[in-house]
Amino acid sequence: MTLFSKIIAGEIPSYRCAEDERFYAFLDINPLAQGHTLVVPKHEVDYLFDLPDEELAATAVFTKRVARAIGKAFPCRKVGMAVLGLEVNHAHIHLVPLHSEGDLDFSKPKLQFTPEQQAETAARILTAFETQE
Amino acid sequence: MTLFSKIIAGEIPSYRCAEDERFYAFLDINPLAQGHTLVVPKHEVDYLFDLPDEELAATAVFTKRVARAIGKAFPCRKVGMAVLGLEVNHAHIHLVPLHSEGDLDFSKPKLQFTPEQQAETAARILTAFETQE
Repeated sequence: MTLFSKIIAGEIPSYRCAEDERFYAFLDINPLAQGHTLVVPKHEVDYLFDLPDEELAATAVFTKRVARAIGKAFPCRKVGMAVLGLEVNHAHIHLVPLHSEGDLDFSKPKLQFTPEQQAETAARILTAFETQE
Repeated sequence: MTLFSKIIAGEIPSYRCAEDERFYAFLDINPLAQGHTLVVPKHEVDYLFDLPDEELAATAVFTKRVARAIGKAFPCRKVGMAVLGLEVNHAHIHLVPLHSEGDLDFSKPKLQFTPEQQAETAARILTAFETQE
């Protein structure tokens, strides 16, 4: 069972930002920006591009909904996306609010927020996710 | 007309890696790695997450085919993906062969290849794209 499957199952706590039957989104614990979120398919797959076409397509559509919620909760120029996947073997998509191109630089020092701040951040995204058209 | 629409129309030359009716893929001129490719919808849209669901889903499926071709042409741990979109206002997806997480760091100095090397790189990806199942 991957780290992310344990998070999805609630065995490891996370700050939930969005969820449906097939996908789960939660705050990155080492954020590049406030609102930096990970989207994961509940189906445990290592490599995003190993997903069957239909599931990959559904992942993209769910990711768009989460990205739009992040952009509504944390206004920015665009919400950027990155997939690396060499550290955790469960496909995941980073979504990061961007104000400049350098905001999607994973070599930068990560931000630190308090649990209260993280809970507030996730709640804002979840509200935006659940109330969007 | 965006820079990328001019590239798609052939008004500005590019090293073509993959194409179908709706999408075009070509080598990044400032590559992070050999095989670094951009995927663009021919439909001119600024922000990826403004694409209608069906078109975004098709973009994801085409991107997967290109990523798999890159991985076949240039063996690597995974093909990483990034979307920033603050510099060119035509949605585009970066695909970069990854050997380590640092390989998707846009702050790194970019690589320089000769036109002959770029042509050879694109030809390897195009062949892999056109011959995949």
